[in-house]
Amino acid sequence: MSVEWLRRLRRGGPAERPGGARESVPRSPQPAPPRYRRPKFLRGGEESPRGGRAVRGAGPERPLPWGSGYAEVINAEKSEFNEDQAACCQISVRRREPGLEEDQEWLILCSTQFLTGYYWALFDGHGGPEAAIIASDYLHYCIKQKLEEVAGAIVEARPPMHLSGRCVCDSDPQFVEEKHIHAEDVVVGALENAFQECDEVIGQEMEATNQTGGCTALAALYFQGKLYVANAGDSRAILILKDTVVPMSSEFTPETERQRLQHLAFLFPKLLDGEFTRFEFPRRLKGDDVGQKVLYRDYFMEGWGYKLVEKADLKYPLVHGHGKQARLLGTLSVSRGLGDHQLKVIDTNIEVKPFLSCIPKVNVFDFALHDIKEDDVLIMATDGLWDVLCNEEVAHMARSFLADNRTNPQRFSELAKSLACRARGKKRGHQWMLDDSQEASYDDISVFVIPLHNRVEDC
Amino acid sequence: MSVEWLRRLRRGGPAERPGGARESVPRSPQPAPPRYRRPKFLRGGEESPRGGRAVRGAGPERPLPWGSGYAEVINAEKSEFNEDQAACCQISVRRREPGLEEDQEWLILCSTQFLTGYYWALFDGHGGPEAAIIASDYLHYCIKQKLEEVAGAIVEARPPMHLSGRCVCDSDPQFVEEKHIHAEDVVVGALENAFQECDEVIGQEMEATNQTGGCTALAALYFQGKLYVANAGDSRAILILKDTVVPMSSEFTPETERQRLQHLAFLFPKLLDGEFTRFEFPRRLKGDDVGQKVLYRDYFMEGWGYKLVEKADLKYPLVHGHGKQARLLGTLSVSRGLGDHQLKVIDTNIEVKPFLSCIPKVNVFDFALHDIKEDDVLIMATDGLWDVLCNEEVAHMARSFLADNRTNPQRFSELAKSLACRARGKKRGHQWMLDDSQEASYDDISVFVIPLHNRVEDC
Repeated sequence: MSVEWLRRLRRGGPAERPGGARESVPRSPQPAPPRYRRPKFLRGGEESPRGGRAVRGAGPERPLPWGSGYAEVINAEKSEFNEDQAACCQISVRRREPGLEEDQEWLILCSTQFLTGYYWALFDGHGGPEAAIIASDYLHYCIKQKLEEVAGAIVEARPPMHLSGRCVCDSDPQFVEEKHIHAEDVVVGALENAFQECDEVIGQEMEATNQTGGCTALAALYFQGKLYVANAGDSRAILILKDTVVPMSSEFTPETERQRLQHLAFLFPKLLDGEFTRFEFPRRLKGDDVGQKVLYRDYFMEGWGYKLVEKADLKYPLVHGHGKQARLLGTLSVSRGLGDHQLKVIDTNIEVKPFLSCIPKVNVFDFALHDIKEDDVLIMATDGLWDVLCNEEVAHMARSFLADNRTNPQRFSELAKSLACRARGKKRGHQWMLDDSQEASYDDISVFVIPLHNRVEDC
Repeated sequence: MSVEWLRRLRRGGPAERPGGARESVPRSPQPAPPRYRRPKFLRGGEESPRGGRAVRGAGPERPLPWGSGYAEVINAEKSEFNEDQAACCQISVRRREPGLEEDQEWLILCSTQFLTGYYWALFDGHGGPEAAIIASDYLHYCIKQKLEEVAGAIVEARPPMHLSGRCVCDSDPQFVEEKHIHAEDVVVGALENAFQECDEVIGQEMEATNQTGGCTALAALYFQGKLYVANAGDSRAILILKDTVVPMSSEFTPETERQRLQHLAFLFPKLLDGEFTRFEFPRRLKGDDVGQKVLYRDYFMEGWGYKLVEKADLKYPLVHGHGKQARLLGTLSVSRGLGDHQLKVIDTNIEVKPFLSCIPKVNVFDFALHDIKEDDVLIMATDGLWDVLCNEEVAHMARSFLADNRTNPQRFSELAKSLACRARGKKRGHQWMLDDSQEASYDDISVFVIPLHNRVEDC
């Protein structure tokens, strides 16, 4: 996707795609990107959300796909605006017939064959909301485009070696089988490539408009009977089934990706510009530690060793701090995400982007292998929720709320609001507190509750 | 460990250690390393193992630690000699008192305090047996040395921030606790460092004696109530408990480490010297594929995509083949191990070593959390066994054999022989066949059966 194409898309005019084909695109009312914006599906929430951290949700007048619930709470003056963004929509993937070349693309206008997917995504911005806004506007276009590029290969269980469907070797299907390549692997590849493309788009757009910032991205795609959850950052998705909770994502933070980050610094020491040490220590070292043997880890270690401390070890560590305080280069609390192309460590020339990955880890859930019950849901939420509620608490709340509200058609929306409200807590004086007198979440909180039993099977 | 120290150790003389301290070392009868040698604990098996692939085991006259069983079978003329090597022994770790400096090391001569560990290891050589022989001779010395370096830190559950035990900051214990660092993490770190040191020793020794080759390494260490299994290569260890089978290792092959290998080639394209492509395809591409879109994977992809084939994609792939045929640079079937410092791709100047890792993945089993039964065993074996028998078959054989032979004091040795014999199969004409008429293993096969109930608790 070129920046030019993106600009036209944002202006609302027809976009000239790189291949030369035209595609009609949705009209956007804004002439320029706003500094603050709520998810489009909330409609008309452009006003600044001052006063009180009210929980907002989607109203019943415009139901979300599958009757999903959504709720959000703004942060407690951590930043001027909510930095979370959300998106959800149906994705129609045009089937390109095998053997059809790109220049014959007009043929598909005659085709009525579409594959339908459903998409939900959360983006948690940092350094400004702009990256999260662009990602919420365009990641689904990137996914649609990447799926269309391979649509010929994903309609059958076993994708062909050649996208054209032609066999160059008689044994090509056997090679594909030996490698255990299934249609779902091609969807996973499309998601991986879509995140990478969206990251490039964000980089180009931010540079062109002289803006900065980045965001995490958590996207769920239901496609051809399977649920794909792609995650780059510290948001989280869990499936709450009748008897079990299935984690559908894992978090990517400086702590969870320490070895990858340290290895890169080992291979390219110049990335640290003499300002940081790649070693991890339990705390920042100081002069008194020099000459002592202290606990440390290098890139190849899952365990800990003791290192004789030299003066160079007193530099600030590449990965430092613990839990929510953990930082990459003293700057970022996540190690994967979109954007941050311009980000430098404050007062230095050290770039953060080389250490960041925009590639999601994709988890797949096959509905054909499970008997989905009426109350089974996928919960997606930004770290604002998970910082104060664990999977088991969320599962317990979801199960009891849904069992108690069987006849309420708005129960998934209500559950989303109830979860956001619980994580936000109540204001006591100047503090936001949980029911059990622990501190509540001061961060932005965004939650999707997606009822799996309501899924549309014919896609 | 310096090469000089290693040489003296091999000659049987006292070694001058880098730190300057002297240590008495075992005397070895050989003036020079033999080309072929059986594990020392088999005693006197220096003769060439010609004729018939007999299963050899350890006799009852010199029992192995815990009454462990061991058996081995030579390959079916795949190479002149057995390339597997084995080692097992008790490891005595001198406790260095906290606060004792290296130059006060003589003080420990007065100490009677030792920590005792038990060690079993398998090494599967390639390109000659020499690397496996050196590894079987020295990995346990490296482990002993690395454990002694941190002995002050591993006797209590929570290691100190400073090896000396002195506190530089009052809150140092809190930092260690926040990072969840336990004594077992320091043992894991010692094992990681020991493998790295053993690899360096092998590299120096092989260069000095103008020899080549490498080996996999699978080592089990029982220490302070926990079992540590460290693996670099494609051998495997599993725990067979009454009701479950617990895998204690995973294999490191060009297939399982594809992304790491491709990423390195992406970061340093010169490593491929224009002779290889880093992309993975289901089969080797040919001229007819150029201009077509074919299935491929790059370093960042777990899924598959389609790539427009260019002429450069016809080069031999960095990772190619499937299952037992998978090769790194068309050369090696493993991606981790020791040695191979001189290995180059045939007829090129391309070095393999930069792609290899000598770092093991360490899995830990805590006996305090399990009620170990009489027939519970750890099975360690080289790929010669696992190529033809799966975990479940081995577990089934072990459980039924041990239940049927409760009163036989040699039952763990007998089980090891029985497993090796089963994997080797029977000769029918020129073929080695399994009972069910499938092809048996033509590779070297080495098996340890370690009875967990017999473990010595006082170490």
